[in-house]
Amino acid sequence: MTTFQVERLPSGHVEDDLIAVEAPLEIVVDGVPLAVLLRTPSTTREDDLDLAAGFLLTEGVIEALDDLAGLTPCIDPAALDADNRVLVALAAGVPRPTPRAFAAGTSCGLCGVSTLEDLARRLPPRAPAAPPTLTAIGAMEPAVRSAQAAFRASGALHAAAVFDGATLMDHAEDVGRHNAVDKVIGRALRARRLPLVGRVLWVSGRVSFDLVQKALVAGLDALVAVGAPTSLAVELARAQGLHLVGFSRDGRANVYAGQCLRGP
Amino acid sequence: MTTFQVERLPSGHVEDDLIAVEAPLEIVVDGVPLAVLLRTPSTTREDDLDLAAGFLLTEGVIEALDDLAGLTPCIDPAALDADNRVLVALAAGVPRPTPRAFAAGTSCGLCGVSTLEDLARRLPPRAPAAPPTLTAIGAMEPAVRSAQAAFRASGALHAAAVFDGATLMDHAEDVGRHNAVDKVIGRALRARRLPLVGRVLWVSGRVSFDLVQKALVAGLDALVAVGAPTSLAVELARAQGLHLVGFSRDGRANVYAGQCLRGP
Repeated sequence: MTTFQVERLPSGHVEDDLIAVEAPLEIVVDGVPLAVLLRTPSTTREDDLDLAAGFLLTEGVIEALDDLAGLTPCIDPAALDADNRVLVALAAGVPRPTPRAFAAGTSCGLCGVSTLEDLARRLPPRAPAAPPTLTAIGAMEPAVRSAQAAFRASGALHAAAVFDGATLMDHAEDVGRHNAVDKVIGRALRARRLPLVGRVLWVSGRVSFDLVQKALVAGLDALVAVGAPTSLAVELARAQGLHLVGFSRDGRANVYAGQCLRGP
Repeated sequence: MTTFQVERLPSGHVEDDLIAVEAPLEIVVDGVPLAVLLRTPSTTREDDLDLAAGFLLTEGVIEALDDLAGLTPCIDPAALDADNRVLVALAAGVPRPTPRAFAAGTSCGLCGVSTLEDLARRLPPRAPAAPPTLTAIGAMEPAVRSAQAAFRASGALHAAAVFDGATLMDHAEDVGRHNAVDKVIGRALRARRLPLVGRVLWVSGRVSFDLVQKALVAGLDALVAVGAPTSLAVELARAQGLHLVGFSRDGRANVYAGQCLRGP
């Protein structure tokens, strides 16, 4: 969070306002710039390493932690913008990613993928997933909110969290929904906790295609959102057996794919 | 909009629910795939052409309508996924875009741009912009809402609109904020109404860096949002003299860059 002076209307009072930080993070793979993510920096560089690891995994550059030979912040004090750069070394034998055409939108998950069938071939095989319960998902938003002060202060950050039942295991926030998700997935990858079988991914906003894709890559059982899903998100979740719950708030929820069990 | 069966909890009622459509649109430039946008299709292909034109302009592939020699939907009935492809022909002398590294996040506006100063050099020179009035911006959300049935039905679509004072000139909606903005800018480009000097861009959600960039490329005077801006959005608006107003709702507003005039 950072502070800017704003004028509040209609009163005309000028006062400090908390604003969510958005700053570019360049991911450099074996010396070659691969991507620039617009992300919310943390006070620790570990958060950037989590984000980079999660991005590389969910976008298909790597398939496992051992595909990384190195993942370090740029610490060259002479480098321009060193705080906003992560240096990646791929392990021997891992194909170097080729720059893809640029993809706007919520993700570039669809670059080079023309059909859902193509995409499904890229995803790991899944065992039948356990559905979440209405009681557990009702506890998720309050649990994340109490753990995250920044969201409440700015109103501009998205949150993502991993739950085991109703127990909050990890959470992250970012101006970008996909970044918040990549942070929690990347942290699990770096801690060798993937796949997240039996776990539920909770997100504060809407669910587009790319979030379902990321949840599937991480092996999660369910995706629970406060907001609405898109058509492509529902179709992919149904095709892949991911439980997808939307509009989860105040004890209510809509089940778009799979199931959500009533009762505890 | 499309319809899916959903189970509503806790009641357990299964019923049809309106869902925002998200589908890939491939932009092919001179036979080479350039980008895949995840967008909301319209009943008319004109909307896709507007989106493609706006994307090419605001991402810096073209600088004016005359840089396009052709912009057509794919109408080859044998082509796979023809409904989701736009064919672009660049005019002679326009540099072919090279595929860039992939950019996640709200936009790839920062690819190859390491500082705000670099970006500013790419933007057209601006005359001093006229500030909007609180009266005018208070009328914007109701005007867009009454013109747009889809948003209200799904809760999952973003809206963008262009205003002359309090008069709604154009509007678009999409699952992606940046797409909704590119649609209205692309439509103005194709109608030779650029630059949009003296006009205000209104958006339904938050304002990240890329939306300010797009507003500047289109020559707009002001950007008014219902949601919060990010730090980079505020910094770029201040550096470039764009009036930036956030949290505009119910007669209130926060002025983050430039001014908003009280009174009519």
